[in-house]
Amino acid sequence: MRCEILTIGTELTLGLVNDINAPYISKALSDIGILCDRKSSIPDDIEKISAAVKEAISRSGITIITGGLGSTHDDLTREGIAKALSRELVMQPMLAAMIEQRFKRIGNTAPEAMHRQAYLPQGAEPIQAMQGTAPGFIIRDGGKVIIVLPGVPTEMQQMLDFRVIQLLKEEFSKNSVLRIRCIKTTGESELVIEEKIENIFKKYDNLSISILPHPGEVHIQIVAKENPEKAENLAKTVEGEIVEALGELVFGFDQETLAEAVGMLLKKHKLKLATVESCTGGSLSDQVTSVSGSSDYFQGGMVTYSNELKIKLVGVSREDLLKYGAVSAPVALAMAEGGRHVMRVDVALSVTGIAGPKGGTEEKNVGLVFIGLAWSEGSYCERFQFSGKRSEIKIRSSTAALNMLRLFIMEKFEETGGDVS
Amino acid sequence: MRCEILTIGTELTLGLVNDINAPYISKALSDIGILCDRKSSIPDDIEKISAAVKEAISRSGITIITGGLGSTHDDLTREGIAKALSRELVMQPMLAAMIEQRFKRIGNTAPEAMHRQAYLPQGAEPIQAMQGTAPGFIIRDGGKVIIVLPGVPTEMQQMLDFRVIQLLKEEFSKNSVLRIRCIKTTGESELVIEEKIENIFKKYDNLSISILPHPGEVHIQIVAKENPEKAENLAKTVEGEIVEALGELVFGFDQETLAEAVGMLLKKHKLKLATVESCTGGSLSDQVTSVSGSSDYFQGGMVTYSNELKIKLVGVSREDLLKYGAVSAPVALAMAEGGRHVMRVDVALSVTGIAGPKGGTEEKNVGLVFIGLAWSEGSYCERFQFSGKRSEIKIRSSTAALNMLRLFIMEKFEETGGDVS
Repeated sequence: MRCEILTIGTELTLGLVNDINAPYISKALSDIGILCDRKSSIPDDIEKISAAVKEAISRSGITIITGGLGSTHDDLTREGIAKALSRELVMQPMLAAMIEQRFKRIGNTAPEAMHRQAYLPQGAEPIQAMQGTAPGFIIRDGGKVIIVLPGVPTEMQQMLDFRVIQLLKEEFSKNSVLRIRCIKTTGESELVIEEKIENIFKKYDNLSISILPHPGEVHIQIVAKENPEKAENLAKTVEGEIVEALGELVFGFDQETLAEAVGMLLKKHKLKLATVESCTGGSLSDQVTSVSGSSDYFQGGMVTYSNELKIKLVGVSREDLLKYGAVSAPVALAMAEGGRHVMRVDVALSVTGIAGPKGGTEEKNVGLVFIGLAWSEGSYCERFQFSGKRSEIKIRSSTAALNMLRLFIMEKFEETGGDVS
Repeated sequence: MRCEILTIGTELTLGLVNDINAPYISKALSDIGILCDRKSSIPDDIEKISAAVKEAISRSGITIITGGLGSTHDDLTREGIAKALSRELVMQPMLAAMIEQRFKRIGNTAPEAMHRQAYLPQGAEPIQAMQGTAPGFIIRDGGKVIIVLPGVPTEMQQMLDFRVIQLLKEEFSKNSVLRIRCIKTTGESELVIEEKIENIFKKYDNLSISILPHPGEVHIQIVAKENPEKAENLAKTVEGEIVEALGELVFGFDQETLAEAVGMLLKKHKLKLATVESCTGGSLSDQVTSVSGSSDYFQGGMVTYSNELKIKLVGVSREDLLKYGAVSAPVALAMAEGGRHVMRVDVALSVTGIAGPKGGTEEKNVGLVFIGLAWSEGSYCERFQFSGKRSEIKIRSSTAALNMLRLFIMEKFEETGGDVS
């Protein structure tokens, strides 16, 4: 079964906001074996919405529409759908009552405009909102199903997860689960990764393998496009081959983040971590603490942004700062060593660099970053030259620091260094 | 002039990655007065690409296509377009030579597959790549223009910014610049904002006004849809009315971030800032240092994640931690006061809370956060109850802390407290 997604909103077609609803929906549907064949964003315009709805239902069995269900003047999705299906908008007394009730609860009467939300195309079956005021609805039209959901991501996600997925599962997905596997790497560029695995994916014509760059990471997506059962085995085989070819570049799979992979290693080997950051400004500790339960291994961090704090908090020497500059290997090492000592941890990571766009010199370009690591038996430091915007350099630096820590633990503490399975 | 955008890739229709190219393109085009009427994502499938291209050029004067131009087996955009236009793919000797040269430079010969990139639909005019290997191209067909760009965002953006925009400007945008203005607020929910400005935007039918929620912020977009010159004045009027109605909830406009707004205030009043974070784990200092030049006012920060470090680094008392718990007003105040003292700054912000999803109790729910502020004359603390995922609670907490600082400086240091223009 194939589906199509329409997201409605002039803010989407003008590029003022990124569409996060369409990816969420297509991911959730592919998990139950329903593939999305097209996603479109349409402006808040009755004619354009109507035309897009007509086209979508002519092509696909399931059309999912989000956005434009609010009460303001630019919410025209109900009208557009009614027009596409040549149906009237009809007041649903139950929805009107619910809207009144919501406002009564906060001691108000519902504004006139709110009542627009009680009008749905003839024959529509409302999907009750779990929060917010915008109800969703389902319409069936000549064997086709149209599901209409609110545009606010949290409301849309709740309605999709708790109501729509169940309904679609019962009606359409007959045990045909699609297999999607993501192999995540860090430490090498897309080009290097492609060269290393080129020969593998050339062998498998019936799998779709994509190499997707992310800041500081490269992901390899294996999608079993047809005949899921046979492809399941193939996907496993190809996954094994890719993991072998890439070795320690692979840090995890699917939803696992690098911070989670590193957290698992720290936990396993009972290591306490601290960070000392300059150019990343807290982005490294922010990544570390993105993991629920990270307080088990993360003690804390310092953002020694000024030279004075580098000296005062972690004991970098004023001489080194003058002689080598704040962005240098000796300072990175001193930050890691000092941080480890002051915060009493097993391992400390430090980052110092030039995040840009200003601050670069002839000798030290924007994107030059030193990352230090100190542990009980010593310390070392690596030099990186990153490119990109300020935010990208920050995230690439944090990612590189986490990866240095990952490789360090694997080498020093894992019996089978390099094995990340 | 209207345009349509097609982004090609099964990873997009399956929701494995978010489409960041389409928003970038439509924003860039709307800046030169070309409005995007539809954005669609299409899987890597010749038939589906061909059908979508045919539809797009039947509707719109300009069609912009990204992705699927690489050298791997799933890159089928060239073939799909050739099919839609009933043209042959023809080898372009110059492109082939350039590809060979790129590989020669790194001491290799180009793999056979790479040569696919040298084949373009008959009549296509290549757009040279500034980096990467994938060239873009332009095709004209019966008065319609089709522009095809690589899918890697950085390559696409460079090609668009430095080649395509100029071309489209000369050919299509005849001084008809569209006016888009974004008013940014923080501190109140979407619903409260809507109630406050409802009466204003009801008056202006010829402007599109949208209220867009972001984590911790609500943005109000004013878009002048037609007759840009007349609408320009109207937009200015309505902007003034909205700013007046919302008062100090407004922190900035358009691309300005809250961290930039706060940074300007700190700089203006020569105040040095430090942060002491627990549950936000560095996300607050990360936001502060997202601003280029933030080292002028940001001295540094501490992430006192463990209780031991709260005691050791900023002098929180063990008694308070036992008596009130780490997530409490006394601890937030002690963190801010201690941080201010240790890092020798004018103002220190502290955050302590429960980011979840675990760690909540009956008394203290996930999302409970205390934010402290200490300055030379005292300190105070506010209690917040946020909702959402771990990452959302972190970002909402950081945003609330920045806003507390913004309101503090406005009240204490700005002569006209509340005026943020």
